[in-house]
Amino acid sequence: MKDQKQNRPSSSKPEQEEELTPEEIVDRVKEALAKHDQSALRYEFFKNHPYDQAKIYIKLSDEERRLLYQYISAKELADVYDVLDEDEQEDIIDYLEAMDDQYAANMLGEMYRDNAADILKKFSPNKIVHYMRLIPIEQAEKIKTLMDYEDETAGAIMTTEFVQIKANQTIKSAMTLVRAKAENAETIYYLYVVDDDSRLVGVLTLRDLITSDANRLVSEAMSPRVVTVSVDDNQQDVARTIQDYDFLAIPVIEATGELLGIITVDDILDVMDEEAVADYSGLAGVSVDEPYQTPVKSAQSRLPWLITLLFLGMGTSTLIGHFEDMISEVATLSLFITLITGTSGNAGTQSLAVAVRKIANPDNEESTFLQLIFRELFTGLICGLITGGTIFLIITLWQKNMVLGLVVGVAMLCAITVANLAGSIIPLLMDRLGFDPAVASGPFITTLSDLTSVLIYFSIASQFLLYLS
Amino acid sequence: MKDQKQNRPSSSKPEQEEELTPEEIVDRVKEALAKHDQSALRYEFFKNHPYDQAKIYIKLSDEERRLLYQYISAKELADVYDVLDEDEQEDIIDYLEAMDDQYAANMLGEMYRDNAADILKKFSPNKIVHYMRLIPIEQAEKIKTLMDYEDETAGAIMTTEFVQIKANQTIKSAMTLVRAKAENAETIYYLYVVDDDSRLVGVLTLRDLITSDANRLVSEAMSPRVVTVSVDDNQQDVARTIQDYDFLAIPVIEATGELLGIITVDDILDVMDEEAVADYSGLAGVSVDEPYQTPVKSAQSRLPWLITLLFLGMGTSTLIGHFEDMISEVATLSLFITLITGTSGNAGTQSLAVAVRKIANPDNEESTFLQLIFRELFTGLICGLITGGTIFLIITLWQKNMVLGLVVGVAMLCAITVANLAGSIIPLLMDRLGFDPAVASGPFITTLSDLTSVLIYFSIASQFLLYLS
Repeated sequence: MKDQKQNRPSSSKPEQEEELTPEEIVDRVKEALAKHDQSALRYEFFKNHPYDQAKIYIKLSDEERRLLYQYISAKELADVYDVLDEDEQEDIIDYLEAMDDQYAANMLGEMYRDNAADILKKFSPNKIVHYMRLIPIEQAEKIKTLMDYEDETAGAIMTTEFVQIKANQTIKSAMTLVRAKAENAETIYYLYVVDDDSRLVGVLTLRDLITSDANRLVSEAMSPRVVTVSVDDNQQDVARTIQDYDFLAIPVIEATGELLGIITVDDILDVMDEEAVADYSGLAGVSVDEPYQTPVKSAQSRLPWLITLLFLGMGTSTLIGHFEDMISEVATLSLFITLITGTSGNAGTQSLAVAVRKIANPDNEESTFLQLIFRELFTGLICGLITGGTIFLIITLWQKNMVLGLVVGVAMLCAITVANLAGSIIPLLMDRLGFDPAVASGPFITTLSDLTSVLIYFSIASQFLLYLS
Repeated sequence: MKDQKQNRPSSSKPEQEEELTPEEIVDRVKEALAKHDQSALRYEFFKNHPYDQAKIYIKLSDEERRLLYQYISAKELADVYDVLDEDEQEDIIDYLEAMDDQYAANMLGEMYRDNAADILKKFSPNKIVHYMRLIPIEQAEKIKTLMDYEDETAGAIMTTEFVQIKANQTIKSAMTLVRAKAENAETIYYLYVVDDDSRLVGVLTLRDLITSDANRLVSEAMSPRVVTVSVDDNQQDVARTIQDYDFLAIPVIEATGELLGIITVDDILDVMDEEAVADYSGLAGVSVDEPYQTPVKSAQSRLPWLITLLFLGMGTSTLIGHFEDMISEVATLSLFITLITGTSGNAGTQSLAVAVRKIANPDNEESTFLQLIFRELFTGLICGLITGGTIFLIITLWQKNMVLGLVVGVAMLCAITVANLAGSIIPLLMDRLGFDPAVASGPFITTLSDLTSVLIYFSIASQFLLYLS
């Protein structure tokens, strides 16, 4: 978590400068690099916020980046890398491999440990060992610990750079400690109070600290009840807790109560983004978080779903094949195949989306599995009755054939009800079995409901064949 | 933005208390209310974090809430309402109307202004005026100003409770000011430096403040370049900026440069959640953010989409009707209708989801409208060629009919390409025309692609009719 601050220009250029566009700023940095003018480069680069520095950094050529490393320290570059977007992380491997290994290791050592761990995870085991050997041993060990936590858990997104104080310290001595730690801690706005066994016993905000009497004890000013998360908790649950309580950070504890690290709200913003994208991708049956890719790469990410669903769809074709004779006799039946499969697919997608959302946000703990399914069953029946009734009226009036209207209407009612049930039962089952229900994608539900809808439609139609032809 | 803190129990019960479940805590509060025991009630209620207090509050009966208001002050209740979840806001109207009007007004007056404005917006104009008359005039005017900003803009989510200091103050005097404001400001971790015309000229973090020499001037310690958002900016853009820069808060300025308010990161978490839900709902064609509702209410929210799409689907049925004779002649054609419509619908949904996501996150500014469409066209062609080729092979081998395989394969290629184009052109056009592209929902795209797919399929088939029958 970076404060809203930047390195102040060390040069003495006038304060009131014209506003430059991002492109002009990049051009000025490139110009300074071309001239090998270190002081101009440092001025033009560091007058920006670290995030803007990162945007400049990724716009430089490989050659320009190599020059940049001569003029800025590994510690300064670490600030840039700490805010480098997740999206750019594919390029990060190339960037680091183009650096001098020791410079890269120094930079990793200066980054916040959680961010350094995230970057290192992208490399091969050999390369990780290589970098680790070049990072100061104490820091390397701490980064290594963070890398060992399972992905998407609290442990994997926490940092170990926080300020811890003791309950029997005075406010004044705590303040001295905070000033000393201000440089390296990821946040100094929450101070965590621990006992001699590193167990968390309280929390004190910087707000409390600066408004408390300097001679009081920390134990008198702190809040003894602390909301915590466990190191194995899923990142989505951590995000929900931070969002509910409006915290800036939350402590992560071991089963023994030992304080292991903290998770700051900036990492939670990234988690929420990631989870939203995952849900959205699941509903669409495609990974939507691809940066701008070539059509070939896009197609590669979409085809596995399309081809899988094509084979599932072949089941529907085979099923229709069984009714081929009936269709050649009463070709009118074919008019309403897509109408029934399409509408029940839409209903199934709605049901799926609501179920996935409800599973992710169980705001009513009393709801049981069966209650949810019954609720969806009734919703499906109501939607089916009204939609089926509508299509019955339309067909009766349009085709002047009440039997056909009845067949299509009843098929619609049944198909929508079944699709609604499938749209809720499948994600609920997946959740029970420990899978992410969000990957029970929309296209999968619609393709599955094509099959059941066709079966329902032709089964009903075959009962009324005499009256239809 | 609340700090991780809570009111300390004023009673002298032992510190080490057994862990209670949420239900037990609610029971204890209810018990204290039943006994009219104010001190026990205040102990059991206030030992929790405000968010947990809110969870208890909504579990009380109307009668119990009425009792509660006698024992806790409007100011104390304001802390609860400041963290009350957006999800509960339907009930908030009922809660407030059950309160004494003056008590409700006092509570609104004590809340953070942005939150008070959000709640007041839910009432009728008459009721708003009524409450406003009961709130201290100065506070009421400030809340009113916030209510006037258009929904989903920076103005609508900002608060005006921030700390502003002057550039020519000393660090020491700024510190005194911060201590005095600590109680009421929503965050004291960023201090905004303004000139005599209230124009923002710099920012100083509390981290900077406590580590700077007390006798220096604010102007020497502050960062003169501040990342700001404009009061009219869309909330989604504000969220993106805070996420990119990892800020805890961002200042909101008027076109003149005047500092109007700040947006804190806790509000951004809610915005991100809201936007993710809106996108997800759009893709599913249903509002998924309904709390647990009755089946009737759920059906009410889903039926408008279903019925609209049913009528659009009738277009497809009518179109198939034009080819009825062809179908009765070659009934085998009907086997592949759902396969083609289903697959192209899946492709269209993928394309739509990627397009909506790209429009929301334009990470590559140089991409033009046409480039995006061409990229999607080529992606569609590749997906179509491979999927079409696969189905050609399957049908040729299964039905021993190469012409039929060719007809279905080519139709599949064309239908997927068209669906991919529609999936990107429609949201791009909507974005250009100023609509939210996320409402171009998945079901709409699939139903539309049903129509084009059927048209393509039967047009191609009619050319080869001689070889098919």
